[in-house]
Amino acid sequence: MTLTKYLSDLEIATNAKMQPIMDIAKKAGIPEEAIEQYGRYKAKIDVNQIASTKKGKVVLVTATSPTPAGEGKSTVTVGLADAFQQLKHNVMVALREPSLGPVMGVKGGATGGGYAQVVPMEDINLHFTGDLHAITSANNALAALIDNHIHQGNELNIDPRRIIWKRVLDINDRALRKVTIGLGGPLQGVPREDGFDITVASEIMAVFCLATSVDDLKQRLANIVIGYTYDREPVFVRQLGVEGALTLLLKEAFKPNLVQTLGGTPALIHGGPFANIAHGCNSVIATGTARKLADIVVTEAGFGADLGAEKFMNIKARQSGISPDAVVVVTTIRALKMHGGVSKSELTIENAAAVTTGIANLARHIESVRAFGVEPVIALNRFVADTEAELAVVLTWAKENDVRIALTNVWEQGGKGGIELAEKVLEVLAKEQNFHHLYELSETVEQKITKIVQKVYGGAGIHFTDSAQKQLMQIKKLGWDGLPVCMAKTQYSLTDQPSLLGRPENFTITIREIVPKLGAGFLVCLTGDIMTMPGLPKQPAALKMDVTADGRAEGLF
Amino acid sequence: MTLTKYLSDLEIATNAKMQPIMDIAKKAGIPEEAIEQYGRYKAKIDVNQIASTKKGKVVLVTATSPTPAGEGKSTVTVGLADAFQQLKHNVMVALREPSLGPVMGVKGGATGGGYAQVVPMEDINLHFTGDLHAITSANNALAALIDNHIHQGNELNIDPRRIIWKRVLDINDRALRKVTIGLGGPLQGVPREDGFDITVASEIMAVFCLATSVDDLKQRLANIVIGYTYDREPVFVRQLGVEGALTLLLKEAFKPNLVQTLGGTPALIHGGPFANIAHGCNSVIATGTARKLADIVVTEAGFGADLGAEKFMNIKARQSGISPDAVVVVTTIRALKMHGGVSKSELTIENAAAVTTGIANLARHIESVRAFGVEPVIALNRFVADTEAELAVVLTWAKENDVRIALTNVWEQGGKGGIELAEKVLEVLAKEQNFHHLYELSETVEQKITKIVQKVYGGAGIHFTDSAQKQLMQIKKLGWDGLPVCMAKTQYSLTDQPSLLGRPENFTITIREIVPKLGAGFLVCLTGDIMTMPGLPKQPAALKMDVTADGRAEGLF
Repeated sequence: MTLTKYLSDLEIATNAKMQPIMDIAKKAGIPEEAIEQYGRYKAKIDVNQIASTKKGKVVLVTATSPTPAGEGKSTVTVGLADAFQQLKHNVMVALREPSLGPVMGVKGGATGGGYAQVVPMEDINLHFTGDLHAITSANNALAALIDNHIHQGNELNIDPRRIIWKRVLDINDRALRKVTIGLGGPLQGVPREDGFDITVASEIMAVFCLATSVDDLKQRLANIVIGYTYDREPVFVRQLGVEGALTLLLKEAFKPNLVQTLGGTPALIHGGPFANIAHGCNSVIATGTARKLADIVVTEAGFGADLGAEKFMNIKARQSGISPDAVVVVTTIRALKMHGGVSKSELTIENAAAVTTGIANLARHIESVRAFGVEPVIALNRFVADTEAELAVVLTWAKENDVRIALTNVWEQGGKGGIELAEKVLEVLAKEQNFHHLYELSETVEQKITKIVQKVYGGAGIHFTDSAQKQLMQIKKLGWDGLPVCMAKTQYSLTDQPSLLGRPENFTITIREIVPKLGAGFLVCLTGDIMTMPGLPKQPAALKMDVTADGRAEGLF
Repeated sequence: MTLTKYLSDLEIATNAKMQPIMDIAKKAGIPEEAIEQYGRYKAKIDVNQIASTKKGKVVLVTATSPTPAGEGKSTVTVGLADAFQQLKHNVMVALREPSLGPVMGVKGGATGGGYAQVVPMEDINLHFTGDLHAITSANNALAALIDNHIHQGNELNIDPRRIIWKRVLDINDRALRKVTIGLGGPLQGVPREDGFDITVASEIMAVFCLATSVDDLKQRLANIVIGYTYDREPVFVRQLGVEGALTLLLKEAFKPNLVQTLGGTPALIHGGPFANIAHGCNSVIATGTARKLADIVVTEAGFGADLGAEKFMNIKARQSGISPDAVVVVTTIRALKMHGGVSKSELTIENAAAVTTGIANLARHIESVRAFGVEPVIALNRFVADTEAELAVVLTWAKENDVRIALTNVWEQGGKGGIELAEKVLEVLAKEQNFHHLYELSETVEQKITKIVQKVYGGAGIHFTDSAQKQLMQIKKLGWDGLPVCMAKTQYSLTDQPSLLGRPENFTITIREIVPKLGAGFLVCLTGDIMTMPGLPKQPAALKMDVTADGRAEGLF
């Protein structure tokens, strides 16, 4: 079997015969009056027009720590849903919407791959229905209103040195990480240090993804802390009185987006915080709407189970009441080999010993999921170069550790390649799970972080830098220590050092900054050198992109 | 008659019974396969699916120099089109799409008013179909790619001090006018001075509005000059090799947007450069498409005839071959009174003498239009406080100066209030016009600017600052002096001083900077203190905006 027979993801997606979005809506049981078409194959849904009180089961798809080899988590998510559909289940997918920044940076989309994709993939990856642009607008309108408030007299006594609200762009732009603004004299505002994050790191994205209604959205926006006064008192958006305008900017974006998988399964794609620097789950409103419509909702959380899944269960589930009824942990032989010390260039050489070593990473994530009281199922996502001996290592390990496991081949076969996995997941769904959060809100911030580090990352403990220690004291003083924590950590390692693959032990996690997000309702704990604004590589994917004379996209994955 | 009986523009627009966009498309003669719906009342048009070779007549609507009293140019444009429709003409409107920045800043939309509006006004004013966001993305992706190129080794030898490509946001944000970026050490890029413009000032907006096809769009993007090397050689986008990616980001946005007027006239709203800092006309692709579909196309150019109309005729008409068959100059008694020296608080007091003085501004614009060989028609847009004596001043002046004039009352009456104007315009359309540009491309840059200043602004001459003089020398050396000029000038005055209303004489215009826009195909000449990034007022419109619990917008005009 050679790779040359394969079409690119874009070619497969472009060749696909999509169903009109009204047909998909009908299949999903969405009334016609709730649908607002965006082109022929996308729609926004007015959730107020959906009366159902159904609460479908939730299957959360997560993965081992990501490697450059690729695990195919979105691909498995989509393929699993198509498999459920082939098994005649009433199923929907709920996914995050892609950020444009990485699309222009590193080749690779967020819409699955091969014959397990959501479509129209080109639209979804580029602008889609404009939700991220609306979030960018709202974020930056707030920033402009803050600086304007100071320029126009600063009635609220805001200390320009203590503004924590940053501007954002949906672009990988390292040159904007640290900037000075307001230069040029008294007519150009008040000079101060500032910085840009990527849009998906905006608190507005988190608020957007956690809000349960337009009113809740407005309340959360009102509660955002933008900085502190000269007297060190927090300043909230509600004091600026602009939560109404911000809500207005987000009103249409807040409606979930309906698309379809290549297998014709209805899919909601809505909201998209990264899981390393934010909470990593699609919107509560999308997952909640999918549960009203389908018996089974397959959803995904970003990066490995230490990041997206931990946050799904400790943050999203706590705030929304949506907890997983089954968790799928995706891995590949290639990824396990990398965790076992093999370099990317040697992945095609059989190395069962490396799989045996690398499996420790999988083991750690399985233990994490079980710590939440939910039964995991391993999806071992096949690649062409996998050998029987390598596969046997994982199958044997799973058996010995009493974990359900299924081989998937959805990239090549679509839903058919996920039938075995679907059947294993159905076994778990048939049983009552004993889901619980990992910590109580009444515990101290140190205790919450320590529990995550010990029970999810497998580390020994935590360390606060002096400045984080000071921030923590202020957070306690302000009474905000009852919030859950949102860890900002590298996705590549269970530690805060990206190069430590596999299953490191006896490590401590350094908390270097704590940023309270009162709108989102959590405390972001920044560890290691985690960046909230990515950069572009030396050869950005943008160099390959083009549009043909007849208007077709080229070079997009 | 009291003002209390009037509903707000938003209330009128919200109460309106709109026709489904497919019905509007049918009325316009657009084949179903060319339509991509965006919600129920907006659509994008695939212009390649429109085969017609028709070339409808073009009515260009312009105005006297704008005052805080408001002239109602967009309102008259929409009302005139509805009047043509009532007279059973096959008519379409082509308008610019609003920028979000001013919407959040100063109350007042760009979609007309009263019973002469394009709808859905709320959507059009907020995000619409995302075109401006796509332009923002493309502009800032290019900026990130430039800084990344320098950070990754700077193969093209770009001088970071001589980059002219600025970042943009569709927000009024004075604090971003002058910034320093790339701070924080070697991993965060190369420090340099930079600044943000508002999106509508981006060269990409100009390119977008002047391109005649996707291929032309790509060519123009490739031709953009982003800065200079250490050897003072220009650096083009094509050298970075990213024109394909930028075109891909703009591909869907480049399709014109179809909406409707309150009178049910099909309207294309597409592209929206400001006329003070850019060329001020909606896209060539929209005007061209409207001409293929309708016998009469009513379109608008921004601000007074000294700005939008001059640029329509010297830039857009020259590049696209679309010249006006009639020009409407909108004015009001209130505006003329302000040009005659009356303050805004005293506008309701009858003052025929002030009208007589202020009419000089109108006279200047009428002369300007005639300088292009096109016959103007005055639309005297009625307000409730206008008195018979005041109206008589203008009517008499028009008669004495042999200019057609019509009273309009479209704000209150919709199309019916524009019938008289439509009839006068039809008289002009029945005659062959002698349209010509005001200067030849072969003339020197100084000659081109001087002709505009003398024949359009009514000034004496021009003055270059030393730095503009140097820039001009370099432009000549590079052979770019054969391009048309795009004046960046205050809209409030015929001079470069915003406070000089009426018809100043014997003034000179100071050119303080010349920015070559090779993609757009013109040289931007900045005069006076014209800002390319507006600021917010002390009480921004955003403070009044809200969303009700049932999802309705409030406080938006």
